[in-house]
Amino acid sequence: MSLITRSYRLRVYPNGAQRRLLDRWFGATRWLWNTALEIRSEAYRMSRPRLSEIISVLLIVAAVLLSAAACGAAPAPIAIVIHGGAGVIEPAKMSPAREASYRAGLAAALDAGYDVLERGGTSLDAVTAAVRLMEDDPQFNAGRGAVLNHDGDAELDAAIMDGAGPRAGAVAAVLHVKNPIELARLVMDKSPHVLLVAGGAEDFALEQGMALVPRDYFRTAAREHELEEARGVEAARAAGTPTTRAAAASGENRMGTVGAVALDRAGNLAAATSTGGLTNKHRGRVGDTPLIGAGTYANNESCAVSGTGQGEYYIRQVVAYDVCALVLYRHLTLLQAVHEVVQVKLRRTGGEGGVIALDRAGNIAMDFNSVGMFRGARDSHGRRQIAMYRDDAHH
Amino acid sequence: MSLITRSYRLRVYPNGAQRRLLDRWFGATRWLWNTALEIRSEAYRMSRPRLSEIISVLLIVAAVLLSAAACGAAPAPIAIVIHGGAGVIEPAKMSPAREASYRAGLAAALDAGYDVLERGGTSLDAVTAAVRLMEDDPQFNAGRGAVLNHDGDAELDAAIMDGAGPRAGAVAAVLHVKNPIELARLVMDKSPHVLLVAGGAEDFALEQGMALVPRDYFRTAAREHELEEARGVEAARAAGTPTTRAAAASGENRMGTVGAVALDRAGNLAAATSTGGLTNKHRGRVGDTPLIGAGTYANNESCAVSGTGQGEYYIRQVVAYDVCALVLYRHLTLLQAVHEVVQVKLRRTGGEGGVIALDRAGNIAMDFNSVGMFRGARDSHGRRQIAMYRDDAHH
Repeated sequence: MSLITRSYRLRVYPNGAQRRLLDRWFGATRWLWNTALEIRSEAYRMSRPRLSEIISVLLIVAAVLLSAAACGAAPAPIAIVIHGGAGVIEPAKMSPAREASYRAGLAAALDAGYDVLERGGTSLDAVTAAVRLMEDDPQFNAGRGAVLNHDGDAELDAAIMDGAGPRAGAVAAVLHVKNPIELARLVMDKSPHVLLVAGGAEDFALEQGMALVPRDYFRTAAREHELEEARGVEAARAAGTPTTRAAAASGENRMGTVGAVALDRAGNLAAATSTGGLTNKHRGRVGDTPLIGAGTYANNESCAVSGTGQGEYYIRQVVAYDVCALVLYRHLTLLQAVHEVVQVKLRRTGGEGGVIALDRAGNIAMDFNSVGMFRGARDSHGRRQIAMYRDDAHH
Repeated sequence: MSLITRSYRLRVYPNGAQRRLLDRWFGATRWLWNTALEIRSEAYRMSRPRLSEIISVLLIVAAVLLSAAACGAAPAPIAIVIHGGAGVIEPAKMSPAREASYRAGLAAALDAGYDVLERGGTSLDAVTAAVRLMEDDPQFNAGRGAVLNHDGDAELDAAIMDGAGPRAGAVAAVLHVKNPIELARLVMDKSPHVLLVAGGAEDFALEQGMALVPRDYFRTAAREHELEEARGVEAARAAGTPTTRAAAASGENRMGTVGAVALDRAGNLAAATSTGGLTNKHRGRVGDTPLIGAGTYANNESCAVSGTGQGEYYIRQVVAYDVCALVLYRHLTLLQAVHEVVQVKLRRTGGEGGVIALDRAGNIAMDFNSVGMFRGARDSHGRRQIAMYRDDAHH
């Protein structure tokens, strides 16, 4: 299996002509400032304080106007990146109708998040909007379409992190929460805690006025079928019957998760991830998704990351924070850091999956060592991309 | 408040005279090897293969014997470090009897873990033994002495990590498990998962043949009194009545946790942490303790860390892994890395607490930015220390 890295890089800085113009602006601004300060001190020396004040104020006003113009010429970049899970996603397993449906689901989430950013909203609101849409879309393994655990229940995990602060909120193993990402957000905003689990998290939801939903809300026919298949494989294994590799690895949502990272106009990063975990998982099993540093991390000092893959590997390798630590401590670029973690460190241990990441300059990384990853990216430089396969021609 | 860093450093290498001897040994070994190789190739050139083989084999045997002697002269270090929580621990708040009792509890756990190492046991068994003893000791906030949540229940979290692998297991929000560290170990050894929570974790305990205990096992009079105090403070706050700082910060176990890190003869690191969390915490609240990378982390490539403090800060700052990332990526010494995280990064955000850490060379760090920290360290260089206060004279 050839695992060529596909990563993406954005030019977030202006092009050559704009840059020269900006340089001239900044040069002029600096000259005005320095001149203002010099004249001011000279006038003070000559005991002409009033004159000095007038001149310096005029020059400072000019400098400020020029700076503002320069900033206006290079608007801060905005960007959002999403994923809808990694796994055995390949053209041979996909009907045209299903492929179109996945692409439409990803596009809806991507555009919903981007709209928030474009209207001047926060990166937190953007990732919440994108993840909530994927939670409501039954084809993704989160919220409504979450896979079922061994007991036949959807057991949901989610986390959100604000790169400013940083602040974080997460919930794990909840059974009756329609949009776990919204509950994670409430934990961050309305509690002194970061992580609430199981019944305690649902108590908190009720305390915050959130309505719970019955467990049947999550039981889709597709997920019930997957659970039966997984139980069959498990029984066959227990009985020593050989199972086909295809059956064992069935379903492109085996490592499903949804997530988003975003950068807003104010330069703040945010990350959000939500999942139903693994089909047929043990009750109470929590993966990397709701664990800050494992499946979800954001810090304005380094980057924002959301992961999707075999959660246990992501937890042991502290994947999301590791990407940012490589950026912060080893001064790798975002793309190098993501490559190191996904293609070198995770592959060394056999950990399968991918991550999406974003930094404050608007650099975007979407990398995976699995067959495919549902993903999308959109930014203020006009990029808008939806992809599923390794070598995905659709842009 | 003067917050002087207290960190400890061990000389893990031999002293001057031993070092010179070792250097001579290694020098002689290297010379023998090189000579053996030269003679062998020379003899081959002269077409005397048999002679060359004899000579080179003799020299290689001598080299191997010398290496073995050199290794024997510098036995691999073993070490264990424990903590019993950080908080407002100061002589003024401590009666001589209570102080002696805490010191005895710490000493028992320290020596139990060290005995395992000395008998050639693994670091995993050593940290398990030390933590289990502190879980059974009602004066520490873990297991039997765990603080009570808002509902009056002890809700327990624990994690263990094996630096070889690395492998990890953890449980959170369990209500009926006498020794959560043993259940965390079972999750690591007997399940494909890393983290199990709440009822699902207890189901797993039963599946593994572990007996559960009734909730009353954890309800000690001291903890019930603390919970009533905390509820009183909460009610007073809600009513707008000013509370004294002392009452609000009452109890030296406010940030209680127990933990251990160890290095065994084979050079493997391990870390374990166990806690009842915060008095009067919301049901389902999970702190840093069971989260790999936050409160517990071990990797033979870098270090082993166990934290104790305000869990939410430790989660957001991925404290345990951050120490190791600073060692691995910024090449700080263990002491520098711990100082950077505890005295710089945690203090910057207001996060109170401490960490213990250990590396493969046997370097020991015990650092905290709180008033005090229950702690102990013992190693094969003859160090054996129990301490509680910042400036603790007892060795």
